[in-house]
Amino acid sequence: MTLPVPTMQAPPVAVVGLGQLGGSLAAALVAAGRTVTGWDTDPAARDAAAARGVSIGRELSGVVVLATPIPALASALEGLAVADDATITDLGSVKAPVLAELGARFGGRFVGGHPMCGTERSGHAATDPELFRGARWAVCLEPGTELPRWLRVAEVALAVGAVVVPVTAAEHDAAVAAISHVPHLLAAALAAAAADAGPLALGLAAGSFASGTRVIGSDPAFVTAMVEGNAAPTAAALAAVRAQLDRPWPALVEAGHAVLTRPVERRTLRVPLDRAALLALGRAGGTVDRRLAAFVEASLPA
Amino acid sequence: MTLPVPTMQAPPVAVVGLGQLGGSLAAALVAAGRTVTGWDTDPAARDAAAARGVSIGRELSGVVVLATPIPALASALEGLAVADDATITDLGSVKAPVLAELGARFGGRFVGGHPMCGTERSGHAATDPELFRGARWAVCLEPGTELPRWLRVAEVALAVGAVVVPVTAAEHDAAVAAISHVPHLLAAALAAAAADAGPLALGLAAGSFASGTRVIGSDPAFVTAMVEGNAAPTAAALAAVRAQLDRPWPALVEAGHAVLTRPVERRTLRVPLDRAALLALGRAGGTVDRRLAAFVEASLPA
Repeated sequence: MTLPVPTMQAPPVAVVGLGQLGGSLAAALVAAGRTVTGWDTDPAARDAAAARGVSIGRELSGVVVLATPIPALASALEGLAVADDATITDLGSVKAPVLAELGARFGGRFVGGHPMCGTERSGHAATDPELFRGARWAVCLEPGTELPRWLRVAEVALAVGAVVVPVTAAEHDAAVAAISHVPHLLAAALAAAAADAGPLALGLAAGSFASGTRVIGSDPAFVTAMVEGNAAPTAAALAAVRAQLDRPWPALVEAGHAVLTRPVERRTLRVPLDRAALLALGRAGGTVDRRLAAFVEASLPA
Repeated sequence: MTLPVPTMQAPPVAVVGLGQLGGSLAAALVAAGRTVTGWDTDPAARDAAAARGVSIGRELSGVVVLATPIPALASALEGLAVADDATITDLGSVKAPVLAELGARFGGRFVGGHPMCGTERSGHAATDPELFRGARWAVCLEPGTELPRWLRVAEVALAVGAVVVPVTAAEHDAAVAAISHVPHLLAAALAAAAADAGPLALGLAAGSFASGTRVIGSDPAFVTAMVEGNAAPTAAALAAVRAQLDRPWPALVEAGHAVLTRPVERRTLRVPLDRAALLALGRAGGTVDRRLAAFVEASLPA
């Protein structure tokens, strides 16, 4: 996961928003030896980050990571000074709307990102420098994305132990609708229906109910913003789940079980630093695991 | 959880089927000082139970616990000698069909039961004497159930650290459809739909997908038997979930979140040893926590 032969000095990183994700990222980058500046409107979050070795300041350069909730992204840089050549990325759970907003503002300097981690906890008290270890981190490669900037963002993800999934914003949003946003709606529906069934049902609830509803323990404002911010892909993915529920139960159970028990072996390969090749890797379920000089080391389902 | 003033010598317990549930129960009862006989058609399961202090034998008396899969319940006692006054119970995940089968055969001597625990693992290698600690254990009180026998079964559950939920078979089946059987179908539909969405979606899958699909890792034959064995209540509960999914997302998310974050304080009370009072307790989300002389100590949502 480390960079064997950096082709240049790793750029500084600036993290705006030092809650669970941003605070964890800043702390993890400090631990990885990177120079990190952080900012948060909450003094307590700034103090917590400073205690982990983050330089607190308003002058941002290198890779600027916007780690605020999506509704706050547009105003996240107010009052802050961003270097003209900085690369801008974010950690938002939906990518097309963020691309529309920040891509229009920063052009090819904006590279959307989304680490697939986080817990029901939030805020700077939930900071964990190990949060990203082993996580998949989607990094968006649009037609207008400058590839060297994409690589700088990918290297930030690799530096904290994540692996990188190259995607377009549209591909990302359809995928996370299926594997993240719809699960939140299913969890809510399962919990609400069980409550309607009465106290006896909730009194008997055990492991399968706990697993099936866990994610709706998250802040409802956050969940609602997430699903409504990705409304069309989420509606399509929800329709796909409902169609599955129309199948005969034995076939449905077999199909679902087969997905969970599919082989997980992966093979390693080298992929050139080329947009089409990288996106093909992501579409095939692959990940960029390491940056090499003129290509990346990647892995794919075998 | 212990019996403060046993009104009589605790009866012996016989466990037929020494897989995960039966093997764990037999081992837990041995650890609690009870006299336990066990039987399984698999010699390896018998040997594993014997190593935990279970007497292996074919002569069963006291409380006879049928811990086989539901399709094997009808033939579980073939070749075994059951005392005429034995109380028969089972651990099956659906109760009305088992009541129809075993109630017809054993009359008031049969008391259906269902401990709300177990994991995706199965077989005697998954035995854990602590499996039942803190679990809810539904024990069925039908109009024809002999209350002293119901108490004997309840005391077996209490002896291994579970709390008892008094229910009718029909109430149980409706409740577990909502909190256990439907979650298995939702997990299958979520997994199958994500697989249809392609390798990128599965490649990005993280915590919410893992939680939402976990239970479909169980043996599909077991899951199919479970949902098909409780078909009408499961279909009704699934329709209730689908109706929830028709709600506007903000309201749905709020409602689901409220269920997961509802207050969990409970109050303790004494409930007479009376069928109507015990069933009212179960319907209110209460549990029998301890057997006292002429009543039980119970708890309810506050």
